[in-house]
Amino acid sequence: MNIVISGLGIIGGSYARAIKKYTDHYVIGINRSPEPLREALECGAIDEIGDTGSLEKADMLILGTFPEAAVSFVRDNASLIPHSCIVTDTSGIKSVIFPELSELSEKYGFPFVGCHPMAGKEKNGFGASEADLFKGASCILVPCERDDEEYKNAVQTVARLAKSIGFAKNVYTTPQEHDRMIAFTSQLPHALACAYVQSPVCKKHDGFSAGSYRDISRVANINARLWTELFLENSSPLTEELDILISGLSEIRDAIKENDSEKLRSYLEKSRQIKEELGE
Amino acid sequence: MNIVISGLGIIGGSYARAIKKYTDHYVIGINRSPEPLREALECGAIDEIGDTGSLEKADMLILGTFPEAAVSFVRDNASLIPHSCIVTDTSGIKSVIFPELSELSEKYGFPFVGCHPMAGKEKNGFGASEADLFKGASCILVPCERDDEEYKNAVQTVARLAKSIGFAKNVYTTPQEHDRMIAFTSQLPHALACAYVQSPVCKKHDGFSAGSYRDISRVANINARLWTELFLENSSPLTEELDILISGLSEIRDAIKENDSEKLRSYLEKSRQIKEELGE
Repeated sequence: MNIVISGLGIIGGSYARAIKKYTDHYVIGINRSPEPLREALECGAIDEIGDTGSLEKADMLILGTFPEAAVSFVRDNASLIPHSCIVTDTSGIKSVIFPELSELSEKYGFPFVGCHPMAGKEKNGFGASEADLFKGASCILVPCERDDEEYKNAVQTVARLAKSIGFAKNVYTTPQEHDRMIAFTSQLPHALACAYVQSPVCKKHDGFSAGSYRDISRVANINARLWTELFLENSSPLTEELDILISGLSEIRDAIKENDSEKLRSYLEKSRQIKEELGE
Repeated sequence: MNIVISGLGIIGGSYARAIKKYTDHYVIGINRSPEPLREALECGAIDEIGDTGSLEKADMLILGTFPEAAVSFVRDNASLIPHSCIVTDTSGIKSVIFPELSELSEKYGFPFVGCHPMAGKEKNGFGASEADLFKGASCILVPCERDDEEYKNAVQTVARLAKSIGFAKNVYTTPQEHDRMIAFTSQLPHALACAYVQSPVCKKHDGFSAGSYRDISRVANINARLWTELFLENSSPLTEELDILISGLSEIRDAIKENDSEKLRSYLEKSRQIKEELGE
């Protein structure tokens, strides 16, 4: 396939590197600023620096940019995307981008398959990309509500590509279920890491901390612009999760204030059991 | 030295293993139940199974048990502890145990040096102990308010032992400062991991999660009895930290509910800056 990747940040860049490392597909990079393109070409992560004109020969278009930019890119270039080109994204939220992208897909004839690679790190940009970033990770696939053969084949193609570049498994879900789960598994940890490090004693932690400080605070090294967008675009599930967490923390605080050893122990024991049932 | 270790759980057991691996000291183990003692003797983590009678030949007594049990052990056996025997503990909180242990130390003549090894994992018992558990970790030393030469030597001896068994550094502090910092660096992450996993969607996370779920939830696999004791014995600093965290999370939630992109972005950016200033 000719694969066009729009946006060579950590995720788009890692797709490029992984595709070149593990498959024979031809990769064309598009990016707003020229530096990542030059860098990617030099290290062999892409075969060619492209532009929107490259879309006419694309068999697949991977949207590696932030959600809003991904939607704009497709909106602005929809007429250039061939009917046979599979469009897939990498956005951390789905409910907001899905209506417009699936509408554009219907209108212009190309299949759209939502995709969220569950991998990343607390760094950004092409410099942070890795061919093996997806090794062992889960790839969440969010198909449109279509069951014609052509569309099923498109979904299969995206799923096969994921497996071939290192993902351990493909998980299928709806935009709503995706966003509900992501609010909990990814957005909530980012929100609480950010709240955590704002304790006035945080700056003095060195010498008094170990693994639990490191693990909780890691993702506070956040891309504020990206995560502001992600949080606001997933407002309802995320505020629900925040309310649940705040209420749980308040329950712990109250049990401590009331010196209620039995209530506290049984709360903690319930958490331990949940982890045990999950085999973690 | 003859070193008596009371309590061969993960921490006491790791002390025993590390001392035998890295030093020439003679190690005597005391434990309520016999299994860990047999196991420790078999694998060479201790030289001898002892009892309270062994204290008369001890040059150092390491209290590896939970805080309350550590205080009881010293209270019950204070008259058996020689004046020349350095008593040190491994408790995760200090303000509560310090008054009684320093009083017993004064009354019976043995030096007491508070100690908190900043290492551990989400498993318990001698089976989880490791000779290299302390490698690279910080050892927090909490000395009494004494500045006579004999006492200074005792503190030096505890500090040297820590360095010789793998700790990267020794940090000196007061019981109050210790407990304030630990509320933030260790207790708060445990509390929020426990609250986090109680979200109703947690049990379905598999396939939708990656590093941030794993890191935040890791310590929810908690020893409920131990941490109930630790939380309640550090009530005031911990509830203060919980209040700060709850208020930070509420600020994030409100910014999202009000769709206030500027407020949210600047909150997250502040967190990023804190991590950056810490070089993390």
